[in-house]
Amino acid sequence: MAQAQKITPRAKDFSEWYNDVIMQAELADYSPVRGCMVIRPHGYRLWELMQGALDAMFKATGHQNAYFPIFIPMSFLAKEAEHVEGFAKEVALVTHTRLKATGKTGAQAVMLDPESVLEEPLVVRPTSETIIYAMFAKWIQSYRDLPLLLNQWCNIVRWEFRTRLFLRTTEFLWQEGHTAHATEAEAEAEARQMLGVYRKFQEEWMAMPVITGPKTESEKFAGAVRTYALEALMQDNKALQAGTSHNLGQNFAKAFNVQYQTAAGGLEYVWSTSWGVSTRMIGGLVMTHSDDNGLICPPKLAPVQVVIVPIWKSEQERSQVLGVAGQVKTVLAQAGLRVELDERENVKPGAKYFEWEAKGVPLRLEIGPRDVAAGQVMAARRGGGKTPAKLDGITAGVTAALAEIQAGLFQAAKDRREAHSIRGVTKQRLIEFMKGTGGFAYGGFCGSTACEAEIKQETAATVRLLPDPEFRSPEAPKTCMWCGKPSVAEAVWAQAY
Amino acid sequence: MAQAQKITPRAKDFSEWYNDVIMQAELADYSPVRGCMVIRPHGYRLWELMQGALDAMFKATGHQNAYFPIFIPMSFLAKEAEHVEGFAKEVALVTHTRLKATGKTGAQAVMLDPESVLEEPLVVRPTSETIIYAMFAKWIQSYRDLPLLLNQWCNIVRWEFRTRLFLRTTEFLWQEGHTAHATEAEAEAEARQMLGVYRKFQEEWMAMPVITGPKTESEKFAGAVRTYALEALMQDNKALQAGTSHNLGQNFAKAFNVQYQTAAGGLEYVWSTSWGVSTRMIGGLVMTHSDDNGLICPPKLAPVQVVIVPIWKSEQERSQVLGVAGQVKTVLAQAGLRVELDERENVKPGAKYFEWEAKGVPLRLEIGPRDVAAGQVMAARRGGGKTPAKLDGITAGVTAALAEIQAGLFQAAKDRREAHSIRGVTKQRLIEFMKGTGGFAYGGFCGSTACEAEIKQETAATVRLLPDPEFRSPEAPKTCMWCGKPSVAEAVWAQAY
Repeated sequence: MAQAQKITPRAKDFSEWYNDVIMQAELADYSPVRGCMVIRPHGYRLWELMQGALDAMFKATGHQNAYFPIFIPMSFLAKEAEHVEGFAKEVALVTHTRLKATGKTGAQAVMLDPESVLEEPLVVRPTSETIIYAMFAKWIQSYRDLPLLLNQWCNIVRWEFRTRLFLRTTEFLWQEGHTAHATEAEAEAEARQMLGVYRKFQEEWMAMPVITGPKTESEKFAGAVRTYALEALMQDNKALQAGTSHNLGQNFAKAFNVQYQTAAGGLEYVWSTSWGVSTRMIGGLVMTHSDDNGLICPPKLAPVQVVIVPIWKSEQERSQVLGVAGQVKTVLAQAGLRVELDERENVKPGAKYFEWEAKGVPLRLEIGPRDVAAGQVMAARRGGGKTPAKLDGITAGVTAALAEIQAGLFQAAKDRREAHSIRGVTKQRLIEFMKGTGGFAYGGFCGSTACEAEIKQETAATVRLLPDPEFRSPEAPKTCMWCGKPSVAEAVWAQAY
Repeated sequence: MAQAQKITPRAKDFSEWYNDVIMQAELADYSPVRGCMVIRPHGYRLWELMQGALDAMFKATGHQNAYFPIFIPMSFLAKEAEHVEGFAKEVALVTHTRLKATGKTGAQAVMLDPESVLEEPLVVRPTSETIIYAMFAKWIQSYRDLPLLLNQWCNIVRWEFRTRLFLRTTEFLWQEGHTAHATEAEAEAEARQMLGVYRKFQEEWMAMPVITGPKTESEKFAGAVRTYALEALMQDNKALQAGTSHNLGQNFAKAFNVQYQTAAGGLEYVWSTSWGVSTRMIGGLVMTHSDDNGLICPPKLAPVQVVIVPIWKSEQERSQVLGVAGQVKTVLAQAGLRVELDERENVKPGAKYFEWEAKGVPLRLEIGPRDVAAGQVMAARRGGGKTPAKLDGITAGVTAALAEIQAGLFQAAKDRREAHSIRGVTKQRLIEFMKGTGGFAYGGFCGSTACEAEIKQETAATVRLLPDPEFRSPEAPKTCMWCGKPSVAEAVWAQAY
């Protein structure tokens, strides 16, 4: 356990607060490698739980996992022109394969062996489209081989200049789905389906409400025909892009010559998609729910859902209290709950509360001698509120409380988002809003890159997406809120991570 | 499905056979990146099942997963002298972080941006001791922080000259456990415990018998005090190192200054271990069990445990047979078995048998009209043997058959190993044995590196390990079978992968 340290209040410095929450919860730590972080056990467990839920949803929609090489020959990246342009400034490049002794000792003992230089540098994958399409070209011959629905869980490297724990790091963990289809319509349906899977996961597991819709041309993925995104509003009213799903059209199929024989005997390029979410979601979870006491974690993803803290003074009380606490732990664990019993002798109950709160445990059960006598525990919720709960039927009580907490977190986050969303925005209102609290601003948009650039320049806000029907305002805007020309679509602006 | 192609018989060319089995089973494929392979869905599912079983065993022994950066500063690797020497010739080195346009198009469109050269090259992890000990130094202050029991699932890069699917690839997947302890005895016990976990997994899940024991000085891990290994004998009578567990003593603790305050108030270096197994085990599984018809996979790890092949001629038979087949699938799936129903219309039953055999499915259930009438299925085992099984109680029957197959594979592999193990070997016998069939040769060993080198030179065999007590010959050898000097330990020689 970390030493108890004060967490900077959100109101004072949101960015410091964010780092403090992560460090106190022991989710991650800075590493000595520039821009790379270490994911500590508590954070990695959270990621495993995220992976487990998502992976089941991917498999239920017919996808299979596979693994492709981390290295991509430089020339492959170059084959899709927009793609290489998008990633050229942020790739780690392997050029040598041996070290040689310098004759010195310690840290200076070795240097690059110049004789080991590679003929062609290798890119450490910033995303895997190019290497995967090279394999698709080998595997796909006929319409019978389609659709091909693959997913990969792996690490990714993008050489970022400014990095932040979870949100933007040189290396991160993610999944990337890559699928090939016989028709444009199937690829579009797949891209949309996976956007829906992500939304379900982010809303039902992470309790993080999102809006969805396509990105503008200037914000889409390098090489995509269309990028769909999920955007969430953080507690500082900045938007976080929480996932993307791309309709790649035939761009990569053409660059890598992935053709298939149709049922009628013709030859066509496949239509394809890719889609991904990453450890960045952990940052989104932190900034959606947590408070000045530390992490708040939705029960479905909490590494520890219930912590039992026994309270005693005398030795007799101790054995009595620990006996009951142990039974409660067993009963809850058998019901499939993730439960810890904090039996440490050298730490006082109050200090334990403090630690487990910082770690985001949704429910704490306190058991003292009087509780044992009354056949109950005191159930304290992470967000506030303490009530007695009968030992008899404790599993049902705890399960119900966790479900309530989960639902409550989602509703609170959604209410907060709506309270910081404005509609039918005008140019002047957008400028004021972005100077003030900020949030999601809905308004008419002419679709021009020039307007986007000007707005970004003046307000630091970008079009997060063009909202899908269910998120649109009741009345479609008629003019671009910035230039006054006809609006082609409603857009949502926000300052973003 | 791949086109049906002939698998080279083992007797003709074992190495070709091995590649053919992997390609036909669609476990993996060659990639366009030198030395790197693609793990295809069937192979990756096998790896996921391996991971699931091992991860549960790691957690049950108190370990937590975490994730450390893939990049290690070159100077870190250099801090432990033996360690850097061991890995210097096989590391991928990142030196640049940007590409720039050349003005050409297509594959030649970009080159390294010389202005992006890193001050210090980064090593792509060949193993993670150095970066992990840098973090241990930060996290460990007092005896209360010990033991620290971590594990990481990740990709690893070692620039191998000659590569083979699964057995030796430039990139591979593995887990690496890293633990820190207060005492030498605890570290030794941990290294031993994890060797036991590996053995249990390899014998009970992979059905691959192993012998265990320490490596000699010349074969131990670069930076370890002592390396314990698991060695299995493949069907070509060559040994495969299937896993290692290292007692690192205080070597890395001293190189990275990982000290802790003892309960008495003193300052001491921690004692540590590391241990790992990798996707190489998949190669071991293939070479332990498979035959000239393709993969044989032990039921506990088979991605598909049962395949149901319906047989029909008329349309009426089809609906009847598929109805029953569907029910059988549902019943078996509900019992937690991994089952597929192969309903394809355009593939004949015989071709289906061939494909699923190549993929290593342990049990095939054939259902035709006569079977439906008789209330039974025909159950064909991958290793041979076909018997009717009553539909009534099919789950119990299938479960029992799978357990029998699992046990049978282990016993057969163990019998084969013992049939190719010789004991009390003399110099002459060793030379003949290694010129002939080969296998495990047990004999006395003086412990000298000179003898090891000579033996390797003359027989291509190396000391695989110094066997643990249960594997030793009834009578301890008195002299070195090579030089005739006193034996310090019995050793096991074999030619190895």
